[in-house]
Amino acid sequence: MAPWCHFPCRLDSSTLTDVLEIAFRPDRTSEVPMARQLADHVATLVASGRLAGGSRLPASREAAIALGLSRKTVSAAYQQLAARGLAAGHVGQGTYVLRARAAPAGALRAASARAPREFAWGGLFARLPPAPAAALALRRCERGGPSPYDFRGGRIEPSSLPLADLRWAMGHAFRSRAGLQTLAAHHDPAGWPPLRREIARLLVRRGISCDAREVAVVNGLQHAIDLTARVLVEPGDAVVMEQPGYFGAALAFAARDADVLGVEVDGEGLRTDRLARVLRLRRVKLVYVTPATQSPTGVTMSAARREALLALADEHQVPIFEDDYDNELRYAGPVQPALKATDPAGQIVHAGTFSKVLFPGLRVGYVVAPRVLLQRLVAARAASDFGSGVVEQAALAGLLATGALDRHLQRARRLYGRRMAAMLASLRREMPAGTRWTEPRGGHVVWLTLPSGVDADRLHEAALALGVAYARGEVFFADGGGGEHLALSCAAVDEPTIVKGVGRLARALGEVASRGRPQVGSRPAVRDRPAGRRSNGTQRAR
Amino acid sequence: MAPWCHFPCRLDSSTLTDVLEIAFRPDRTSEVPMARQLADHVATLVASGRLAGGSRLPASREAAIALGLSRKTVSAAYQQLAARGLAAGHVGQGTYVLRARAAPAGALRAASARAPREFAWGGLFARLPPAPAAALALRRCERGGPSPYDFRGGRIEPSSLPLADLRWAMGHAFRSRAGLQTLAAHHDPAGWPPLRREIARLLVRRGISCDAREVAVVNGLQHAIDLTARVLVEPGDAVVMEQPGYFGAALAFAARDADVLGVEVDGEGLRTDRLARVLRLRRVKLVYVTPATQSPTGVTMSAARREALLALADEHQVPIFEDDYDNELRYAGPVQPALKATDPAGQIVHAGTFSKVLFPGLRVGYVVAPRVLLQRLVAARAASDFGSGVVEQAALAGLLATGALDRHLQRARRLYGRRMAAMLASLRREMPAGTRWTEPRGGHVVWLTLPSGVDADRLHEAALALGVAYARGEVFFADGGGGEHLALSCAAVDEPTIVKGVGRLARALGEVASRGRPQVGSRPAVRDRPAGRRSNGTQRAR
Repeated sequence: MAPWCHFPCRLDSSTLTDVLEIAFRPDRTSEVPMARQLADHVATLVASGRLAGGSRLPASREAAIALGLSRKTVSAAYQQLAARGLAAGHVGQGTYVLRARAAPAGALRAASARAPREFAWGGLFARLPPAPAAALALRRCERGGPSPYDFRGGRIEPSSLPLADLRWAMGHAFRSRAGLQTLAAHHDPAGWPPLRREIARLLVRRGISCDAREVAVVNGLQHAIDLTARVLVEPGDAVVMEQPGYFGAALAFAARDADVLGVEVDGEGLRTDRLARVLRLRRVKLVYVTPATQSPTGVTMSAARREALLALADEHQVPIFEDDYDNELRYAGPVQPALKATDPAGQIVHAGTFSKVLFPGLRVGYVVAPRVLLQRLVAARAASDFGSGVVEQAALAGLLATGALDRHLQRARRLYGRRMAAMLASLRREMPAGTRWTEPRGGHVVWLTLPSGVDADRLHEAALALGVAYARGEVFFADGGGGEHLALSCAAVDEPTIVKGVGRLARALGEVASRGRPQVGSRPAVRDRPAGRRSNGTQRAR
Repeated sequence: MAPWCHFPCRLDSSTLTDVLEIAFRPDRTSEVPMARQLADHVATLVASGRLAGGSRLPASREAAIALGLSRKTVSAAYQQLAARGLAAGHVGQGTYVLRARAAPAGALRAASARAPREFAWGGLFARLPPAPAAALALRRCERGGPSPYDFRGGRIEPSSLPLADLRWAMGHAFRSRAGLQTLAAHHDPAGWPPLRREIARLLVRRGISCDAREVAVVNGLQHAIDLTARVLVEPGDAVVMEQPGYFGAALAFAARDADVLGVEVDGEGLRTDRLARVLRLRRVKLVYVTPATQSPTGVTMSAARREALLALADEHQVPIFEDDYDNELRYAGPVQPALKATDPAGQIVHAGTFSKVLFPGLRVGYVVAPRVLLQRLVAARAASDFGSGVVEQAALAGLLATGALDRHLQRARRLYGRRMAAMLASLRREMPAGTRWTEPRGGHVVWLTLPSGVDADRLHEAALALGVAYARGEVFFADGGGGEHLALSCAAVDEPTIVKGVGRLARALGEVASRGRPQVGSRPAVRDRPAGRRSNGTQRAR
């Protein structure tokens, strides 16, 4: 037991409560138990001389109310202080701070002046909604650093970039004082007007006829999703996403504390029959889709599904967010017009980006929306960072106006088309029976479904050990499922490396499969697909 | 009265409630009364054929519950429908939709397919906290377009910019494949590592010794404030700002629904005696200050006030946000180190920007903070837009590393120093007795206090009529006060234009003053200032 010695004194305990209350910042995210945090805090106050020996600590009930803690927590903290010899209490008499015994008070105070305690930020942070399971999965995939066979995506092939055009475009703004004057004068948070006009022109290809005033420039597609979520979604609102679906969208909706509802994807894209069921049961604030090249499966939404989706959106008067991130990379088959091309009521938000077709560090994207919505999106973005950088905007406008971007896209389609073909050929050659994958006609990513019973954790370890990195399926499931899938991106891997990497992945798969197949936690790997059809991006079994 | 004709039928009215409920999006921000909105909605349903003639509308009580409206509103809507001849009701019998009389239903439906009703976004928007009065004042000042004598600020003198250096720096990243490879590989949401290192080096000048890992790159200073508000401030939290103070900060805090408390500024900066009173009365989440060059007065915070501020922050364990936006533009007097230079406990967030020293369209700023906080700021920004553009970051790193930015700053100080001197000399020469202004030793802005009794609205009109634009004082008061002040920026006005513009402003002031001086709505224009002292940026009477 701690030594007992009381120093009752006349200090007003309500003043003490104030001291504790003002200075104490409980960190509810910390692993340190709350009682321990409070005990440490009082100990610091004593050590720094702010709380004199002999002060009577407020009654646990009083302190609990003032600090917003349970009485049990406060009592536990007082007991810990007693155990450390810093306080003493007795039933009916209250708890008292013990006079510091060894060092004189002056010395303690001087020591605290030399090395002040660290500011307690922990208790000041605004409450955050819980991150989706996908965020954790994402961090797991980012572990391990660079790999020789890196199929994780998110990067590009630098050798594909039009260096001279980019150098010209980026320096372009500073070619003359007149050009600079224009840049300095224009700083519309909706974007640099010439770029907005070029984007409106570009969209004609996607079947969208819009006015430059319906286009806003944003910092990439993630920004478009984030702004739309901020403007439309309130905590608890239901938002529909494809499942599997783009993790960035899941993060943005989760950050608004939305109730994210996943609707299954098959070889024709979003299952609109399932969507219909959801819309009948729940009032949904937004349906987020990637119809051109579904992320991550690479499936292109069929015409029938598009019609069904538009009809459902009309019936339930629900807006659609069309993420058109990768539409320019199309290798085969007809290009479907954007959903936004059929939007007479102005119900669809359409967003695209230049980060995918050029390089990820170019943070320029765009959003097309009815003006009443666009106005709010622009206001939200203006209050946040005033607008996108004008140099990058001017450079892009130059690349668009001169046709340099188009020439680059032609090369990029050939390059990535070859990589995708190499990836699919290698999968056919190497993958064991029971493995299935999509056959995308655009984009960079193949979605692979493991033979049933393969342990995803063990496969991931075995693959990393052989130098193969990929994105695990859980990254694309907001609810933590999806372990039986992988996403393989060919964006930053050349053809010989693709061939070798897929071979190594197959080896890892063989090793893990031969070690036994635990059935626990596995999910049915078969997705519904119209039998006997091989449309773009359907699953293929081998 | 509308014609009566009933078509009672067996349609289940609960289904009808569903139809109304699902499709009806009340827009509570609209000026259209709610009853009218509901009536319009039902009319649209009828016209489009979704609601057949003869359908019985749900009882007003039932509809009111389903739609979240008052029963009175629903009744009023039904009455309006009856008045339009679209519905009919009778006590005890319910209200019925009237069969469309003139056009056959098929024709109506076809018409609606050709020109579908516009999607009702109004009711979908997330609730926004009310914008501060400053936002409205800002819009009033933005009216009127370009003026020959434009003292509104926010722009720069393009001829001051180092064109060749900028062109080199912006194209630099694309000089070689190796450089590009680095750019493509690095995409840390905290910023491009070489730029973070250069910024850490730059901060030594401000007396701040920090590690590159404590620095994050953001999209300008506004972004730093916005992110800090997002991470720390919850609705209802108290935040202290200088009054007058930077409107961008007021916007960011208001967007988080903070309770913004203004604390007065005098010739020595923030009045820490007033701050002490506020901190005793309220638990404050953050104190936002601009100590180097107070925005908008241009006053530099005195050493005594800095000490008092730091002591108060320590006593109340309140964090400080130090907005160091304009510190590099200093014309006279010693440079005060940053507050952050004295931050042993890690309690201060320090932020700066390159938009001010280069050009506003360059959206690159930085924030320096203890790692536990920085981590959250970076996570919030990553979920929003993944990170700042790498080209601009690489360009800035180049400008910093080669000393080009320093050479530019020397020229900029000379240029803007001359403009500030011309502004102050013109004010002394031209302004009528009773007008007072600050004499800043840095930055671009002079803060002017009108003689008592001048009507701010009439002066603004008279000045605009003479081609003079300025920012009204209300822009810098979160609560709508400040009408007796103006902010005059010399950033984008050359010396002859400053001289003429100030002359015209004096003329406008003379005209308005001679037209009589209404006392209503005027506020005491005198700010506390230590008598007999003329420190930097004190108010000067003439």
